[in-house]
Amino acid sequence: MQGLMMHTPLTLTWILRRGLRMFPDKEVVSRFPDGVHRCTFAELYARVERLANALRALGVKPGDRVATLAWNHHRHMELYYAVPALGAVLHTLNIRLPAHQLGYIVNHAGDTLLFADADLAPLLEPLADQMPGLRGRVLMPDSLQGRPRRDGWLDYESLLAGAETRAEFPEFSETTACMLCYSSGTTGDPKGVLYSHRAQVLQCLIAGITDNFRFSERDTLLAIAPMFHVNGWGLPFQALLVGASLVFAGSRLDAASLVELINAERVTFTNGVPTIWVGVLEHLRRQGLRLESLQQVLIGGAPVPKPLIAAFVEEYGVALREAWGMTETAPPGRPNIVTSAIDALPPQERARYVGKSAKVGPCEEIQHIDEAGRVLPWDGETMGELCVRGTGIAGAYYNNPQATAAAFHDGWLRTGDIVTIDRFGNYQVMDRAKDLIKSGGEWISSVALQNAAMTCPGVAEAAAVARSDAKWGERPVLFVSPRDSAAPPATEAILGTIAERFAKWQLPDVQDIRVVPEIPKTSVGKFDKKRLRELLQAQRAPDEATS
Amino acid sequence: MQGLMMHTPLTLTWILRRGLRMFPDKEVVSRFPDGVHRCTFAELYARVERLANALRALGVKPGDRVATLAWNHHRHMELYYAVPALGAVLHTLNIRLPAHQLGYIVNHAGDTLLFADADLAPLLEPLADQMPGLRGRVLMPDSLQGRPRRDGWLDYESLLAGAETRAEFPEFSETTACMLCYSSGTTGDPKGVLYSHRAQVLQCLIAGITDNFRFSERDTLLAIAPMFHVNGWGLPFQALLVGASLVFAGSRLDAASLVELINAERVTFTNGVPTIWVGVLEHLRRQGLRLESLQQVLIGGAPVPKPLIAAFVEEYGVALREAWGMTETAPPGRPNIVTSAIDALPPQERARYVGKSAKVGPCEEIQHIDEAGRVLPWDGETMGELCVRGTGIAGAYYNNPQATAAAFHDGWLRTGDIVTIDRFGNYQVMDRAKDLIKSGGEWISSVALQNAAMTCPGVAEAAAVARSDAKWGERPVLFVSPRDSAAPPATEAILGTIAERFAKWQLPDVQDIRVVPEIPKTSVGKFDKKRLRELLQAQRAPDEATS
Repeated sequence: MQGLMMHTPLTLTWILRRGLRMFPDKEVVSRFPDGVHRCTFAELYARVERLANALRALGVKPGDRVATLAWNHHRHMELYYAVPALGAVLHTLNIRLPAHQLGYIVNHAGDTLLFADADLAPLLEPLADQMPGLRGRVLMPDSLQGRPRRDGWLDYESLLAGAETRAEFPEFSETTACMLCYSSGTTGDPKGVLYSHRAQVLQCLIAGITDNFRFSERDTLLAIAPMFHVNGWGLPFQALLVGASLVFAGSRLDAASLVELINAERVTFTNGVPTIWVGVLEHLRRQGLRLESLQQVLIGGAPVPKPLIAAFVEEYGVALREAWGMTETAPPGRPNIVTSAIDALPPQERARYVGKSAKVGPCEEIQHIDEAGRVLPWDGETMGELCVRGTGIAGAYYNNPQATAAAFHDGWLRTGDIVTIDRFGNYQVMDRAKDLIKSGGEWISSVALQNAAMTCPGVAEAAAVARSDAKWGERPVLFVSPRDSAAPPATEAILGTIAERFAKWQLPDVQDIRVVPEIPKTSVGKFDKKRLRELLQAQRAPDEATS
Repeated sequence: MQGLMMHTPLTLTWILRRGLRMFPDKEVVSRFPDGVHRCTFAELYARVERLANALRALGVKPGDRVATLAWNHHRHMELYYAVPALGAVLHTLNIRLPAHQLGYIVNHAGDTLLFADADLAPLLEPLADQMPGLRGRVLMPDSLQGRPRRDGWLDYESLLAGAETRAEFPEFSETTACMLCYSSGTTGDPKGVLYSHRAQVLQCLIAGITDNFRFSERDTLLAIAPMFHVNGWGLPFQALLVGASLVFAGSRLDAASLVELINAERVTFTNGVPTIWVGVLEHLRRQGLRLESLQQVLIGGAPVPKPLIAAFVEEYGVALREAWGMTETAPPGRPNIVTSAIDALPPQERARYVGKSAKVGPCEEIQHIDEAGRVLPWDGETMGELCVRGTGIAGAYYNNPQATAAAFHDGWLRTGDIVTIDRFGNYQVMDRAKDLIKSGGEWISSVALQNAAMTCPGVAEAAAVARSDAKWGERPVLFVSPRDSAAPPATEAILGTIAERFAKWQLPDVQDIRVVPEIPKTSVGKFDKKRLRELLQAQRAPDEATS
């Protein structure tokens, strides 16, 4: 028997209308190199209407893919709403990908229209005639005052100025696709995740609840996580849903610019990868600055060094909240939560449950499995591959049956992350499955090693990978970058510091601790272990010949 | 183009599993006349499994309607989960309805099985052979220790003891019906609202968000609002979703019992109709008691006297949060919220926006219309009939095309409530459409009159209704009950106090202010204006003959 409730679809169009109707005076603030742009939600809505009409005039139909290559700013947000409101799909391109990958993605997605920031458009120059499906290109200003032009490109503001003012948005089912984002996977071709309106709206509701990020209309959100990365971790939608003002940092992501922006706009919540916050901490300390309004930071994309978390809460009163998520799991992450049940434990036992990577959120379920696919116990110790399912989780990759078959099994997404899960449903990411170091048949967590190394005096960052070993199968190699390049830490001292936390066989040999000027990073700021392994291969080739 | 996310239905079964898996140690506490029953979420889950198996053994199939006639307690909660988990429909009967209405509802719903508390079962005695569809009756204990028996009734605990222990719950679409509740409408036959799993889950998510009731696993919820009234305003579902312990007050709803329970269980959140809180306030003052843990009370079902709100916040630090809702709009209500935009206004202007009945929540939209169906402006002054639509709103009545045609128009539910809406989307219920007093072609709000009267010294409660008037069409009559029956307030004094807040034509004549020992109430505690009108009719008949 079916219920007799109204069939109201959960769509981004509804979030847009709510923002206009309930919070017309809240602001979207975009920083450009030469100044700050401000508009109210009401003004944003009016521009989204014009943009939607312009898109229609350019031939955009339901289901069409429209690509963006852009920083975080109000125009990008207008596209976030106008394209899905037409039943079309916004495809955000990662500006840090090499040209050939951008070309692959644009063609694989079948994008028909492209919007690019003026300073990013040159990235596509090498691909001029390699994206035959593109019917049009639109250039967006990269500064507050400038109106750059480019041959063969339309101008965004002219397009809006020439468009009809009022738009009627079509109705469609909530399972309609709204956004497309390719995973920046470190192996193989990028894989497309095709989000639905329903998933986005539900994730916003879930992220906002009290035991997650407790978003309120009294918040001011700063979107540091790029809008080309998992929909800006959902903030452009969250803002209009709860009525929080939204700030975009644009292209200047250095620590000084971010701290200035946070304090100037009285930001309460922001997000980003750990490396950004390492830089912010150093800047704050060096300059003796405060963070006056900031309360919470959602940290994702890579494991967060515990000393970083401690420093922010103790010195600045800011909660860095580690959360887990991936392109396939729809933003934003599921933050770790210290529940009352954990608080009630004796101190020693309590320590076993705090500071985990994440906790299962509403509307999703998790399990972890061994290599044979057996479901493992939630004992906080047994390591296995994390599997997730729920309303915010991808069920397949876009037009990629092979990658789909590899990742999705029996209704679960196999994440490739190795975790432990405790009895409260908190999970700790121990490693990527492919980054685990298997020594003498036992697993060593590369993440545990590098986290320990990052607590050593003089160490800025650390990353561990496996080298092949004739006797043990694999052995760990630890790369460290010095805090001060003039006084790099001694490898013996590092080994001495981390030794007490590991079994002897889990430790790298002292000659396997390598001090390098900098740890290489991927396009989204994660440690690039693929490059580290190549480095190792190149360095070791002569050794191996002689060993 | 369809998105490629997982198709995970939003169901109460999922909430149940979440409660078990994430919060196994949280408690459900039920107070009985002879003691308190406690069980953990894990124990509750195990009993729900047994109950589901027992229901199956009794022949319950997907779509079947199973009725309850019960107070708030853990067994009722087990039915809240076990029946919908089977794809069947839990039909909660209002224990305060007269027998003939209960019979009408049971037969109209087509209930096949009935669960009743031992002390309530006699209510059905007069209907013994008038409910031919009922295939079975199950008696639930009305005390902690007792195991009452009744001829022709099965015993709940024996049923569970004899059932299989583990249950597999079926999968079904989220639009499947889960609960059925008949509106206690003061006119006509009761009308059935058939809630879907989807609507219940979404309402829980929405009610929990920070700018609504900010439910957290650190809360302890006390369900005072009866479970037969709009699904206990959603608390039995909310508790397992967020991981908050849940307390049931059972059948003792006097002020002393409630205050004792709130303090003993460290309740942080509860709910109820205003009259209960009038009694609690008097008890607290008289006994010099505190409310040690309580933070918020969701008040609904009737307009809340402003002095009551002020007294609780000033004397006890408890926020009574008025919210609007009806059987047709799925619980719980939408609380009024003082947003940052309102806070930022000059004090005098600010006063125009605070203390409203409600604010539009996520996933719903409102408008108000005049008698010709024209949409009215959100100016905070223009009165019109409130219309709502959204995920939590009924789209039709169960098996009642006539009532459906009367209430639902163009995708909107016409609520019968007369409201003003301000520019922030806060709305103020001015009256029920049928309770408005139309004098000389202009509307007088009966609610505004009675609220004003309840601020007068010596007045406990007040209710206004219309009397017919040859010259003006209608004129207001104000019934007041004295705080102290030995010293009733003077009608001239009341008129004097309220006079300054109304235009002269809006005021009742002094002889139309009637002091009565008590204001009659409906089965859910609202002022019973139907009875007041009857009273008036009976009293006035001789007058009218002579006027």
